Parts: sequence; C-alpha cells; structure tokens
Amino acid sequence: MVTYTEAMQRVAAMQGQLQAKGIDGALFIFPIDVYYFSGTRQNSTLWIPAAGEPVLMVRKSLARARLESPLTDIRPFPSSKEFPALFHEGVAKIGFTFDVAPVQQLNYYTKLLPGREFVDISAANREVRSVKTAFELDQLRFSGATLCSVFKQVPQFLKAGMRELDLAAEFEHRLRTAGNEGYIRMRAFNQELFMGLALSSGAASYGFFDGAVTGRGLSNASPQGSSTQIINRNEPVFMDYTGVFNGYITDMTRIFVIGELDPELQRAFDLSLVIQNHLQNALKPGAICEELFQQAVEIAEKGGLGAHFMGMPGEQARFVGHGVGLELDEFPVLAQGFKVPLQAGQTIAIEPKFVFPDKGVIGIENTFAVSHSGGEKITDIDDRIVFI
Amino acid sequence: MVTYTEAMQRVAAMQGQLQAKGIDGALFIFPIDVYYFSGTRQNSTLWIPAAGEPVLMVRKSLARARLESPLTDIRPFPSSKEFPALFHEGVAKIGFTFDVAPVQQLNYYTKLLPGREFVDISAANREVRSVKTAFELDQLRFSGATLCSVFKQVPQFLKAGMRELDLAAEFEHRLRTAGNEGYIRMRAFNQELFMGLALSSGAASYGFFDGAVTGRGLSNASPQGSSTQIINRNEPVFMDYTGVFNGYITDMTRIFVIGELDPELQRAFDLSLVIQNHLQNALKPGAICEELFQQAVEIAEKGGLGAHFMGMPGEQARFVGHGVGLELDEFPVLAQGFKVPLQAGQTIAIEPKFVFPDKGVIGIENTFAVSHSGGEKITDIDDRIVFI
Repeated sequence: MVTYTEAMQRVAAMQGQLQAKGIDGALFIFPIDVYYFSGTRQNSTLWIPAAGEPVLMVRKSLARARLESPLTDIRPFPSSKEFPALFHEGVAKIGFTFDVAPVQQLNYYTKLLPGREFVDISAANREVRSVKTAFELDQLRFSGATLCSVFKQVPQFLKAGMRELDLAAEFEHRLRTAGNEGYIRMRAFNQELFMGLALSSGAASYGFFDGAVTGRGLSNASPQGSSTQIINRNEPVFMDYTGVFNGYITDMTRIFVIGELDPELQRAFDLSLVIQNHLQNALKPGAICEELFQQAVEIAEKGGLGAHFMGMPGEQARFVGHGVGLELDEFPVLAQGFKVPLQAGQTIAIEPKFVFPDKGVIGIENTFAVSHSGGEKITDIDDRIVFI
Repeated sequence: MVTYTEAMQRVAAMQGQLQAKGIDGALFIFPIDVYYFSGTRQNSTLWIPAAGEPVLMVRKSLARARLESPLTDIRPFPSSKEFPALFHEGVAKIGFTFDVAPVQQLNYYTKLLPGREFVDISAANREVRSVKTAFELDQLRFSGATLCSVFKQVPQFLKAGMRELDLAAEFEHRLRTAGNEGYIRMRAFNQELFMGLALSSGAASYGFFDGAVTGRGLSNASPQGSSTQIINRNEPVFMDYTGVFNGYITDMTRIFVIGELDPELQRAFDLSLVIQNHLQNALKPGAICEELFQQAVEIAEKGGLGAHFMGMPGEQARFVGHGVGLELDEFPVLAQGFKVPLQAGQTIAIEPKFVFPDKGVIGIENTFAVSHSGGEKITDIDDRIVFI
C-alpha cells in the first residue's frame, strides 16, 4: 500500500517540474501514471495542480479506488458540465502525456476544457518516475530476489529435447506461483512482451523488439519469445525474464548449457561480464548515460566482438541498459544520444549481449540501483553460465 | 501465413470504406492493424491508398517483414526528406487511428506531411476488422478448439485448499504448452489483461475491468485476476480464460464446483444458459446489437436476477457480449447504444454472468460466429457446471 506521505513525495516531485516549466497542472490518464501518484490503478483521471492537493476522478471502481488510494480528494468522474468547474480561471496551461495518450483522449479533454492549452509533459513525467523512492527500492529488491529464486530452479527442469516453449512454460509456472503478476507494462508505442524470452541457439533471429534479442515466437502475429524449436546439448540456452511483484519489474538474463560450450561463445560471455562489471562500477550519480554506452561499445570492439554486440549484424540495438520500475522501459537509457547524468536511486537493467547468427545468443543482464558507491546489484545471484 | 489474396481482400474492404468517406488513403501504425493488412507485425507503418497497392515501411526488422508479408511493396522506413515523395499531390485527406495512436505519433506524421488533413478512421477500421474472412474463421475455430482442450483438463488439477493463483498457474502452464502465445491485445485505452481470471467465490470484488468480473488480483498495481485466496469446497470456481493462437483470440468461461452448489447459484447459472441460448439463436445477420442486449436484460429481470446481472450492484456492465479476433475487445458489442445490425462472419463472445457479492460469480461464456442459421459455437464443449 502506498501511504499518503509516499504519494505526496511523488506528487511534490512532479509539482516541482510543473512549476519550473510554468505549467499550471497536469492531467494524468495513463493507468500506471495514475497508480504511481495515487496508489490505485482503477480507471480514473488524476489532476495534479502545480501546487496543492491532487484530485482523483474515478470511472470504475470508485469503491476500490477509495480503499486503495491514500489521496484526500477522490470523487466520481464528473459530468461534462461539472468537469470545468474543477479548474479555476488561472489554469491556462495543462500538462498531458503525449507519449502514451491516444489522440481521441486529448481531443476529449480539450473539448471538456476549451480555451486551455495542453502541453506535452512526457519527458518530465519519465524523469520523475526514473528516480525511485526508498519504498520503491525495497519493492524492486523484493522483485529481484523473487525472480532470482526462480532462476535458481532452472537446472531442475531444463532438459535436452524439450521445446523452447516447454522451458518457457515451466519457468513461467514457477514465476506465477511465486506471485508474479504477469502483465508487463511497456511505455514505448509499438512494444509488447509476454513475461520473457526462453531461447535456444537457433533463436538469434531478426525481430521488431527494441532489445538485443527477440526470438522467433510461435507465429507471425506473435513473432517474439519461445518457439517450438527443440533445445539441444552443447548450445547456449538464453533465459531473459522479468519479475513483476507489487507492480515493480526487475529484469535479468542467465545462460544455461547442457553439456559443453563453444570456446568462442565462452569468450564472448566473459567479455559481457567485463562490460557489466565496468558499468556497475561506473553506475554513480553524475555519470553520463551516453558515455557509459560508448565505453561498453569500446570494450566490445577492443575484444574483437563489436560486430556481434547487441544484435544481429545490421540490426544492432544502440543501447546497453534501460531503466526499470513500474514499466520495463523507463528512463534513463544507457544509449547513444542520451546525454543526461545518472541520479542516485535510478534503477537500470544492464544487458551486454552478443549475437552469433549461427551459434546463438550469449550475455548477461542484471538490474542495478545507481548509488554513490556504484551499482547495487538487485538481481543478486551468481552471474556465471550454469552447466548442466 | 497470410497470402497475397487474403491480404488484398482485407485491403480492399478498407479501401471501400476510404472511398465511401472521400479519404485519399490511410496510414496504419498500430502493430495489430499493420499485421491484419500486411501479415507481419514488425515495427512498421503501412500506407493504404484509396486505390492501388499498399506500401509497408519497416523500421525493424526489414528482413523479417520481407519473409512474412505477401505485400509487393516493402521498403525501409524512408528518411524525413524522402517520406513526402511517397504521397502524390492529390493526397489531401489521410485516415489515422485516433483511438490508439498517441498524440506524439500524430504530431510526428503531420510534421512529415505538412498541409495534409488527418482524419479519424477508428470506427471504419474496427468495422472492417469485425467481419472475419474464411481464413480468419478457421484460425478462430482452431483457437477455440485448443482452448477447450485445456478447459477439459481442469478436473485433473483443481483441488480444494489451493490458492486461486495456483489454479491460474496450472491452467496457464497447460495453455502455454498447447501453444498459447500469451500476450492478449486489447484496444480500449485503459484495459489490461493477463491471460484470464481464475477466481473463487470471494473474488466478486470491485474492479476497473470493462467486464462483469475483475477479480482481486495480487496487488493494487495489478488489481485483477487471481489472488492468494484459498479455494474452498461448495463454492463456484470461475474460470474465464482466453486462447491466443496465431494471433486469434477466443474467450470462454466455465464454472467448476468441488462438492455442492448453493441452489440460488444453480438457478442463476440455469438462467445464464437461457440467455445464452436465446442469443445464440438470434445471432443472425441483421439482428440489432442493442436489442440483443435488451433481450438479455429482460430475461435476467423476468428471472428475478436483474440486480445481479453483469456485475456488482451499482457497478453493472451494460453489455452482454463483445467481438473477438486479433483483439479481445473488437466490434461489435452487444450493448446499450450499439444500434448496428450484425453481419455474417462476425465473431462474438457472449457472456451472461451474475454476481452475488457474498456467494460468488456464476455464468457462462462462449465464442460464436454470426451465421444465417444462428451462432456457430466456436468454443464447443459442454456448458454445464463441472462437479468434482
């Protein structure tokens, strides 16, 4: 449960952004944004004025929103006539999340509030969300620990001859009984993910996903993740999964091998650890995101594996880490063009990976929290390849 | 695989709508719309001119889009300079899906194509998608048959004393190994669903979901579906699950009871069957959606259960069925205000349900195809309550 103090700490961070930008308040309609500031994910719209108490207007379920949210002003969604009365005459400029709000929603609210200017606050919202409170860091630690407990069980059920899909189903079953909530929230417009990726060596196929690896999937309609391909001995089995507990997402990858591993892949794996460990040490407030990405590329290139880094040759992703929290693709991103400094309390999944079209995918991923002593490892089990 | 003939049949249906509305063409950016018309769900934008061949512009993965799509013009996403050259001078009015496209996306395309008017084609798109081709009906029959094969296994693993979550995990594990793709696409702005709902009697709790039943869920961040509540003897266990195979979604509900059932709930269940059977017979081209909903309400009221129909008292949903296909919430909707006639080949999940706050949720759901001889039952196993 999000307490009043916790919610108002988050609201105050947003109000600081609004005031700095000369915006009179913000209307939040995207479910996970509403949850972040209010503590409830019911179907509702949240008004955060630049100063003062927020107002939660609920379509469904009002009863449940009142049980869950600590905010002081929770009311039924007003009629079109009543709605404008909520906003005093001084409210001229209203923030709105143009990154996720459909055009129909903006048109609806601009019609409800004629004469007001709606401005995009997507970046400010993502920046506020990127810095986790102490409460959120604890949620993420719990999420990471529970996800790790399932990764530890993989040697119990991974067998040569099973399909990628069977491995996925076994893993997902254990994740669910451990309390995993399942639905993975992503903010980017065209992204979708079902829990994670369990892939054998043949799965280094092309794909739409904004990551190093997509997987073949089960059909052209769902071209991602596990396929019906058989898992063989002596190949890297790539397990990239998320844990979602109390809404908080952690993300990690481990490699499993039944038998022995091609020495070239072992060298690539060792290099992914070098990159990870370099970035973990550098994960301090003030470090520039883009520079961390460039350092990762440099290590990969010096190791002779630049052409395999973060994707199929020609389809390489230009990042090595991404923020995680209530969404899988939060700020900051360790990527080209991301020139901002890290802040303490940001949580980032770092995932140096190498793709060999004929041999498979290999690498490491862990979720870290940025701190003054470097990255705190939140998915804290052994990084090494598990040989079975 | 979607063939060229199949894709162009769908494109022609959209072109008919565009021509009737005086729109010069439509830009599709929402992944499942792009898939529907092109046969690939890669990260891409599809231009359908009012007449002529569509153009698929691919960001990632071009190689995979070319393998999967039968369209004749597939190219890399053009640069900002090249983009306008695709559109001849006569293109003045461009259709866009305002229901799902974020504001940032509309702003991006209006900037790429200055001087053009963008108009909302959300309803026309959903209407085209609602009428399934023969190929799509076969996909839905396969989806329904596979989903049914998992429902038949429930008596093997449902036990008193297990948590709702354990029941969900067992069911989902079998769904996955049967080839279920997992990720459920919904179009409505604020909706989310993870595979389905496995609920015991206490789960008739309030919720945001646009259905009769939401479930308690595992946290306020994921307030939907199974919780850790224990399943007891002599209560209705409510299993409402989707099957997603080759992208096509079917939706069904069955009730299971370990022991005996309260006679009031049995009477409510029998009434849900009366409503379903009435609607199945009426599921013919020309029937008016709203009238079917009103008939369902009438039967519920005559049976003395109007106050329990389709939700908690005070939170009753005003519908009794919804279209299914590549998305779970397609057109048409058997709902108040939906005054359009049914068309042959539409596929609709009909779900008369009754909610008793203290006793649980009961009812039936099956997916049907509209035909001249009434609804073809696509989730074709016995409707009756399974006593264990």
